[in-house]
Amino acid sequence: MPRALVVRRVHFNAAHRLHNPAMSDEWNRTTFGPCNNPNYHGHNYEVELCIEGEISSETGYVVDVGIVKALFDEHVHAQLDHRNLNLDVPWFADRLASAENIAIFIWEQMGPRIPAGRLARVRLWESPRNYVEYEGG
Amino acid sequence: MPRALVVRRVHFNAAHRLHNPAMSDEWNRTTFGPCNNPNYHGHNYEVELCIEGEISSETGYVVDVGIVKALFDEHVHAQLDHRNLNLDVPWFADRLASAENIAIFIWEQMGPRIPAGRLARVRLWESPRNYVEYEGG
Amino acid sequence: MPRALVVRRVHFNAAHRLHNPAMSDEWNRTTFGPCNNPNYHGHNYEVELCIEGEISSETGYVVDVGIVKALFDEHVHAQLDHRNLNLDVPWFADRLASAENIAIFIWEQMGPRIPAGRLARVRLWESPRNYVEYEGG
Amino acid sequence: MPRALVVRRVHFNAAHRLHNPAMSDEWNRTTFGPCNNPNYHGHNYEVELCIEGEISSETGYVVDVGIVKALFDEHVHAQLDHRNLNLDVPWFADRLASAENIAIFIWEQMGPRIPAGRLARVRLWESPRNYVEYEGG
Amino acid sequence: MPRALVVRRVHFNAAHRLHNPAMSDEWNRTTFGPCNNPNYHGHNYEVELCIEGEISSETGYVVDVGIVKALFDEHVHAQLDHRNLNLDVPWFADRLASAENIAIFIWEQMGPRIPAGRLARVRLWESPRNYVEYEGG
Amino acid sequence: MPRALVVRRVHFNAAHRLHNPAMSDEWNRTTFGPCNNPNYHGHNYEVELCIEGEISSETGYVVDVGIVKALFDEHVHAQLDHRNLNLDVPWFADRLASAENIAIFIWEQMGPRIPAGRLARVRLWESPRNYVEYEGG
Repeated sequence: MPRALVVRRVHFNAAHRLHNPAMSDEWNRTTFGPCNNPNYHGHNYEVELCIEGEISSETGYVVDVGIVKALFDEHVHAQLDHRNLNLDVPWFADRLASAENIAIFIWEQMGPRIPAGRLARVRLWESPRNYVEYEGG
Repeated sequence: MPRALVVRRVHFNAAHRLHNPAMSDEWNRTTFGPCNNPNYHGHNYEVELCIEGEISSETGYVVDVGIVKALFDEHVHAQLDHRNLNLDVPWFADRLASAENIAIFIWEQMGPRIPAGRLARVRLWESPRNYVEYEGG
Repeated sequence: MPRALVVRRVHFNAAHRLHNPAMSDEWNRTTFGPCNNPNYHGHNYEVELCIEGEISSETGYVVDVGIVKALFDEHVHAQLDHRNLNLDVPWFADRLASAENIAIFIWEQMGPRIPAGRLARVRLWESPRNYVEYEGG
Repeated sequence: MPRALVVRRVHFNAAHRLHNPAMSDEWNRTTFGPCNNPNYHGHNYEVELCIEGEISSETGYVVDVGIVKALFDEHVHAQLDHRNLNLDVPWFADRLASAENIAIFIWEQMGPRIPAGRLARVRLWESPRNYVEYEGG
Repeated sequence: MPRALVVRRVHFNAAHRLHNPAMSDEWNRTTFGPCNNPNYHGHNYEVELCIEGEISSETGYVVDVGIVKALFDEHVHAQLDHRNLNLDVPWFADRLASAENIAIFIWEQMGPRIPAGRLARVRLWESPRNYVEYEGG
Repeated sequence: MPRALVVRRVHFNAAHRLHNPAMSDEWNRTTFGPCNNPNYHGHNYEVELCIEGEISSETGYVVDVGIVKALFDEHVHAQLDHRNLNLDVPWFADRLASAENIAIFIWEQMGPRIPAGRLARVRLWESPRNYVEYEGG
């Protein structure tokens, strides 16, 4: 059967702050600039979940993207949406809440749960002006 | 000569329905949900035609995207735009009209006709929230 | 208290056909062109629900747009999404399913149900290239 | 001379929380839902600054939008971008940080400083799915 | 009959330069900055043609936007697209080629030719970051 | 350490003309059509700078995209923005100013200057309807 990539866009919004507690306050201010603001700032995150696999002859689908969205809602949105990533999400307790690391968090949550095909890429827009892609390695 | 990928966005709109006649009505309703609606529903499809090849030293082009659009209009748009994919397009008589399969239809129509370089990818947006990519295999 | 306009974007998709049964088939074909296709075509419709009113000093809101979306889901989306407007929606039995008339349908469904402020405008995108606005008159 | 409206899009991002200290915690949780999260959440805000006036015969402009952007950077962006609206911006100390009120803040900062024409509207997108408009009253 | 506003988006691209020959070179450089570059620069212009009128009971349309686009192609696109506004378009020989004035040009070309309803507004995007609106006065 | 791709969108606008001086005027008119207009035309170019590399455990970044934007401003924007590519930019004196070649120019300017990771791709939108990608070879 032929193969394709299917993509579902989803979204959440959150507060965060970039701060590495192993480094000095001055290093943090210089390195992260306004992203180091002690009281946090925030973003609307837009996410593209990209799943690659064989097209089923029964359904014409690689995977039902409605199921992918339901899994995202349960395993990512419920943890991140309208939250403070640094304070409310244990996974970020010892990790920087950069776009790169948020993409890895989504990958870890979604990768093992994709019901058909495999998660090939997570694209995460932090703003309309920048995004990251993570492919699992 | 250096190589590049060039992309032309085009579009069409159509009605369709997801229904596998080899399966029961109940299976179809459960599997496809509202996409199985007997009287069809529809979408605006946005298409990205991605052509990879050597940059011509004479034109600075991989391929003239105006020609690519004209070929799309003649060989895809004329068959799909403002049509019912299930009823009006013979290619879908025995195939599910999923986004994945529509991308394959476009690939088959466009691939052999690209006048310079080669069709590398068809990206098909079914809505602003989901798309598929097909690379010919 | 100061006044503002608040807008919630929502969406649905549907099949439709433009056909005036009071006129000849030739008139319909000439007037509506491909939009008259007997087997229907379809669109992704994007909707902007615009509500004008006083900003509440208790909430800082004109109206909670989450409630507006829930009302849209119940009273519009449930009737139009993944449907054939001509065949599945009684309101269009004797009306042309043009973007103008779909905006009026949404206005009639939503206008009386807005819980604070008043519905000031329905903007309906039929494609990324055309939209209509209806303001109730 | 003819008149026109000119619009410059600008942006900032911030953390905020909706919480009315005059009401009970339960009222706040019920009224604002996840927007009441104690540790804040955040958004990318996109702003449209709309200035109406006479077209100058000397410049062909209503107003130089480069100057409008510089004024926004100095008087709005410097106060709101990468900040926590509730904690870092004194104007919100006794006001709810709703999109409606943020639009009023921008109006108050920008309105008296427009060098030609007059500020006619502030449109503030809180997410790609909702926005507010404030016209000064 | 109810009334509505219908909008068709169209586009063209062009080179231009802002320069007022009645003023000194220094005034022009100071006033227009890089927009005064002697060898021109350019833009993709996106246009929204907004027509207001009664909804026809025969067609469900205020106006057939396909006809509006054909009129734009003949009377605006043919003059402006892939042109240098200053050198190739006589109307700009004694007018500044600002977004404001381009909107007036489009208004003058399109206004008298709208076959049903009336042209209510021309919105012209000069870039994704700024636009103007002209309503005929 | 895990690896990711990070992307910063930037932009400029410029006038240009496609014309190969080694060929006849007739060949140029036939090959390039309106893009051969002697007095130039123009575009808003949107650029995606895509950098691939290891995620730093100190910063959570592959690269600080703020630095990437500053380098773009200094080494690309300063040369191309509000310019005539054919007349004002020496690099294009003996090269066609096609989107493909502009992407190569950006690659050559940016590639050696990326401070962490490596430039993996330059995507250049010439209009909302077409773009090119160059990956350095």
